[in-house]
Amino acid sequence: MTSPIRVAVNGYGVIGKRLADAVRTQDDMTLAGVADIATDYRVRTAVELGILLYGATDEATGAMRSAGLAPLGTLDDLIADSDIVVDATPKKVASLNKERYLAAGRKAIFQGGEKHELTGFSFVASLNYADALGRDLLRVVSCNTTALGRVVGSLHRAGLVRTTRAVLFRRGTDPWESHLNAPLNTVVPETSTPSHQGPDLQTIVPDLDVVTMAAKGPFDLGHVHFTMVETTRPTSVDEVRDVLGDASRVAFVRADEGIVGQNSIVELMRDLGRPRADLWEVALWEDAIAVRPDGGEIYLVYHVPNEAIVIPETIDAIRAMTGLESDGARSIAKTDAALGIRRRFVGTREPAGAAGPG
Amino acid sequence: MTSPIRVAVNGYGVIGKRLADAVRTQDDMTLAGVADIATDYRVRTAVELGILLYGATDEATGAMRSAGLAPLGTLDDLIADSDIVVDATPKKVASLNKERYLAAGRKAIFQGGEKHELTGFSFVASLNYADALGRDLLRVVSCNTTALGRVVGSLHRAGLVRTTRAVLFRRGTDPWESHLNAPLNTVVPETSTPSHQGPDLQTIVPDLDVVTMAAKGPFDLGHVHFTMVETTRPTSVDEVRDVLGDASRVAFVRADEGIVGQNSIVELMRDLGRPRADLWEVALWEDAIAVRPDGGEIYLVYHVPNEAIVIPETIDAIRAMTGLESDGARSIAKTDAALGIRRRFVGTREPAGAAGPG
Repeated sequence: MTSPIRVAVNGYGVIGKRLADAVRTQDDMTLAGVADIATDYRVRTAVELGILLYGATDEATGAMRSAGLAPLGTLDDLIADSDIVVDATPKKVASLNKERYLAAGRKAIFQGGEKHELTGFSFVASLNYADALGRDLLRVVSCNTTALGRVVGSLHRAGLVRTTRAVLFRRGTDPWESHLNAPLNTVVPETSTPSHQGPDLQTIVPDLDVVTMAAKGPFDLGHVHFTMVETTRPTSVDEVRDVLGDASRVAFVRADEGIVGQNSIVELMRDLGRPRADLWEVALWEDAIAVRPDGGEIYLVYHVPNEAIVIPETIDAIRAMTGLESDGARSIAKTDAALGIRRRFVGTREPAGAAGPG
Repeated sequence: MTSPIRVAVNGYGVIGKRLADAVRTQDDMTLAGVADIATDYRVRTAVELGILLYGATDEATGAMRSAGLAPLGTLDDLIADSDIVVDATPKKVASLNKERYLAAGRKAIFQGGEKHELTGFSFVASLNYADALGRDLLRVVSCNTTALGRVVGSLHRAGLVRTTRAVLFRRGTDPWESHLNAPLNTVVPETSTPSHQGPDLQTIVPDLDVVTMAAKGPFDLGHVHFTMVETTRPTSVDEVRDVLGDASRVAFVRADEGIVGQNSIVELMRDLGRPRADLWEVALWEDAIAVRPDGGEIYLVYHVPNEAIVIPETIDAIRAMTGLESDGARSIAKTDAALGIRRRFVGTREPAGAAGPG
């Protein structure tokens, strides 16, 4: 195997900190360090975890030093010491960094907050890994689009999808900032219908007919999708369960096993010892899978863990772009094994193709 | 005009207390009184409002007297003093009362918590008023089904509906009991898909093809529907706006006028001086009305005020069953004028057929 790829993470927020941990679980890549502008508990945690810290700007580097932190240098120093940069900075900031990475001769991965046009290539590991091989720029699509890609994309590959309609019920904010800008006791619909996630998925699967509607509500555990798939031919609950049971990074949960809501899913992650109680999988309610009597439409409901779902996709993107692994299935299997990604968490009904306990 | 119809309300809860007030705004019916089993602030409010109070059971009547209340008698006394009974008691309790009402020779109206089979006839004023004329038993359908009936039913009458798919995001509890049994920070999906509301609407419009999915969340202002209607022919946003602008008890709100969520709708009702800040109308986001480019599908999002939406339907049911009014349009207009039901609350875009300020 080639020497470990050195990964720089710019932005130690919701995605960055999870990605930094994930990189450190893989044996073919190492974390060069993280860059950020904060000086509070967020970056101090990185120091506690033994992660090399850099200032994302000269000002930030100075502020870190004034705050008693010991950044090794600036973002440019981190870039220089890396083979590839994962940009996990806030929307708009990321796009300004692109030329900086390219000028330094580094490959760069951006997150779903950025537009497809920034990189010209959007990514979901199980859908277009091969097309990502050797690329200099790549965008891992958003959490919602990633979930749609895994679920609907797998049904599409099975030749089942004629049209997809999905209603996305989005979390109002993330836990780390739930003290502000959070909706309370209200539902706020998006008024631009269809919402952007459908077209976003089409940047990866152009021939997929999909329409999405969205709203946000007063909760922060993740999103929930209500997805209705018109089929190209009559199908059955058993066939849908088989296809989704083999789908990459889709795990089944069951209400009849006590997993009745998002809260029970997260509680289960806490009990299983997952880092940060994270869920990398789409959690799909197996006992809610329904099919219209004539077999012409599939009804699905699943939980989308917006904080962590794109982490394994980003790890695979690193392998594809740097040539660490040319085979998507092998990269996905390697990532999943290192993180402990599963097809089912409790219960005995292990579907075909299950990866088993991580 | 015939002498005012005497209306008895059994159950002074979320529906009963609103119905009692609504009956008192109509000039062709009077409130005979209300019966309940509670002795706390809920029934004491009725006394404060000058409403005649009865004990729903002998025990309740005794408990009321012990609590210093002065009930005029028991439910049987109230029934004897009325022409028609509206049962707004909790699920299961209501069905036990049916024979009691019939034995006393009284017509009876039940609410959507009961099954269609209890009365054999389900009702939405704008859809089947004529069929309710002279009936002894009637069920006003649930808040969700009433909203679907008003919105999708009006598109159906316009010949536009081929298939309807709706995702119902339900309030987790009602404000009066939000100190218990309320979900917090989680979304809990219904695992029986399709949910019951679609079939429920078909008890009124049997030829309407409709499928619903549902979930509940941590809010109590009402429900939100995301409704997708496949059309029988190409349509346009303008046509849909015209049809819904004429739909009974559907009011337009606009995000670009600051009505961005359920909370802004309720705040508006508070500012307009609505009793209990109630909304009897479906509040549909006019600037979120969308149509697929080929005109083949309509996308709608609207707020369903579960506490009050069925109140005007119940007033109309009283008129139809007792023969106070044989014409549905006239009954609806009379009810709407008395309550102050509107097609729009603010802004200048008054659609065709608007009722104007109440």
